[in-house]
Amino acid sequence: MTQVVQRHLFGPGPTNPYPEATEALARPLLGHLDPAFLALMDETCDRLREVWGTANARTLPLSATGSAGMEAAFVNTVHPGDVVVVAVNGLFGQRMCEVASRCGAEVVPVKHEWGSPVDPERVLAAHPSPAIVAAVHAETSTGVRSDIAALGAAVREAGDALLVVDAVTSIGGIELRADDWGIDVGYAGTQKCLGVAPGLAPFTINDRAFERRVERPQSWYLDLGLLGGYVGEAGGRPGARTYHHTAPVAMVGSLHAGLGRVLDEGLEQVWARHAAAGQALQDGLEAMDLELFAEKGSRLPELTAVRVPDGVDSAAVRRILLERYDIEIGAGVGDYAASVWRIGLMGPNARPDAVALVLGALAETLGR
Amino acid sequence: MTQVVQRHLFGPGPTNPYPEATEALARPLLGHLDPAFLALMDETCDRLREVWGTANARTLPLSATGSAGMEAAFVNTVHPGDVVVVAVNGLFGQRMCEVASRCGAEVVPVKHEWGSPVDPERVLAAHPSPAIVAAVHAETSTGVRSDIAALGAAVREAGDALLVVDAVTSIGGIELRADDWGIDVGYAGTQKCLGVAPGLAPFTINDRAFERRVERPQSWYLDLGLLGGYVGEAGGRPGARTYHHTAPVAMVGSLHAGLGRVLDEGLEQVWARHAAAGQALQDGLEAMDLELFAEKGSRLPELTAVRVPDGVDSAAVRRILLERYDIEIGAGVGDYAASVWRIGLMGPNARPDAVALVLGALAETLGR
Repeated sequence: MTQVVQRHLFGPGPTNPYPEATEALARPLLGHLDPAFLALMDETCDRLREVWGTANARTLPLSATGSAGMEAAFVNTVHPGDVVVVAVNGLFGQRMCEVASRCGAEVVPVKHEWGSPVDPERVLAAHPSPAIVAAVHAETSTGVRSDIAALGAAVREAGDALLVVDAVTSIGGIELRADDWGIDVGYAGTQKCLGVAPGLAPFTINDRAFERRVERPQSWYLDLGLLGGYVGEAGGRPGARTYHHTAPVAMVGSLHAGLGRVLDEGLEQVWARHAAAGQALQDGLEAMDLELFAEKGSRLPELTAVRVPDGVDSAAVRRILLERYDIEIGAGVGDYAASVWRIGLMGPNARPDAVALVLGALAETLGR
Repeated sequence: MTQVVQRHLFGPGPTNPYPEATEALARPLLGHLDPAFLALMDETCDRLREVWGTANARTLPLSATGSAGMEAAFVNTVHPGDVVVVAVNGLFGQRMCEVASRCGAEVVPVKHEWGSPVDPERVLAAHPSPAIVAAVHAETSTGVRSDIAALGAAVREAGDALLVVDAVTSIGGIELRADDWGIDVGYAGTQKCLGVAPGLAPFTINDRAFERRVERPQSWYLDLGLLGGYVGEAGGRPGARTYHHTAPVAMVGSLHAGLGRVLDEGLEQVWARHAAAGQALQDGLEAMDLELFAEKGSRLPELTAVRVPDGVDSAAVRRILLERYDIEIGAGVGDYAASVWRIGLMGPNARPDAVALVLGALAETLGR
């Protein structure tokens, strides 16, 4: 590894990190029980509460990637035979079905066309009394945003199901208000709009869901009953710490710094910056006569799925972008692997220069 | 975080990282599907095979800390009702019982006195035909080394049980030969003798154990059947990649660099360096009239448990070391929380200067 490769990470994630997040990774390491680290962890949880829009005491970075956040959500809440209604409008909804099923759920998938947002009415009609309703806020596979506020209101009106939400690609990029929207359990990732390297799963669970939790879940590593002590929130005794596992201290320090950058700029300003960059990108793609994949009105600004024009080799274009311009964009997934590209402008890349660069490189490569 | 705190991490882990590992953390981030990253991941797995002493194709860094490695070991190998004999001579043996039990095992713990090594005869006598025998190579809670070569030979002679070994605190510090010793499944951490920040679990599983694996384990995140594709080793088709989760790319790059440093020095040389530093530390502690906790002949060089002298406040001493010298040492755990200190000299800290520093600071603090 003599030659260091530097990429523009314009795919579905990871994104290039904020410089503060990278700088923090290289700081002298602290012990996981050092008072200086415990203070940093506490402040990280405070900052996570802000980006989640929650007052939940149990808000913490789980020590694994976003996919483990999904597992933690279900492994702690699904009792054997519980009905879990999952809104499926892309790959990550599908994955929720698989993960919940392995936790012993009776899964009721509600399939939507890929590219469409979740329809709360259809989700609610799927079962009279589910224990859990689950949906993805920002579908990374399709670039679609679903209205979690509307879904949350409908779920609360219909009964007492818990609402589990995947916010991996929404947190720090678009409006997210866990408490106002009735999200009981939420998980996310660091490597998308938060602008931090992958490796942690920002997680939040409210008292209602925690009280209904599985007492001894099948996963020890992701057992929230044990993890409360790890971040000093066990049984409402902030400051009381119990050793559970060695915290990934470098990554937590990096998340702390990335969140600091986001909150210094201001959440609303960060959302506006993502919105502007995404709009400019989508306008530019349409001006090139390219067709956007996600339904109009439900397009994520931070992640844009665009159809590969007829007769164009998707992989060849991605290879040229990577080799000539050091630009990474994503392929599609599933049925759309070769017919869709996914372009992410997340975190520090939600900027006019990134928009201009990816549009310029794509125009040159496609000859448009 | 205006003031950066710099510590000498002489506790049970994390240790200070090798400078190469820190430097790599701050490199420009690569996408997890970038050809440059896939090459780096392949090379990381090759390097892991060297430090494990294995030719196992399925050798990879799991995307979570060492404790998740323990969970992965059991969640992939324990079928409901399987008898799992666990040698318990410290905290991590106890934890193995808990984790295996959550995977549906009938656990047979074989309790040893803390501070003693595992006795293969007692372990083998515990059950006539276990499915799995499990033991900790280097008990982080007590500073004891167990003879895994002897245990492995005994297990093979007695039947066809799988041998699961915790190598969290041994890998990269003392002799470890997974294949020669008959280790079927092994897991480790990065933050001890490998000299890398915590966050990944180096893992290895041989064909025999993989063929007996649980087809659809209760954990999706740690499902080795799926993770084979993630590192390009699925079904013996190196190079074939399937998306499972976003790799923690920065941490993998850091592990790659730390392993490079270790292998450049040479494994045998690294073991000798740890042995010399540990011996010098233990000699110095005994010269101060302090009593070592672990049984003579079974003391780990990289982690030394020493009894707190009568009348000395364990926590007060640790606080002085931290505040005056920026030195972290560990408390004991369990029954020995206040009566034992744990001093680790791991990775870059297995050096004469670290020995001199910790002995000098301890002598000053204790007035010896």
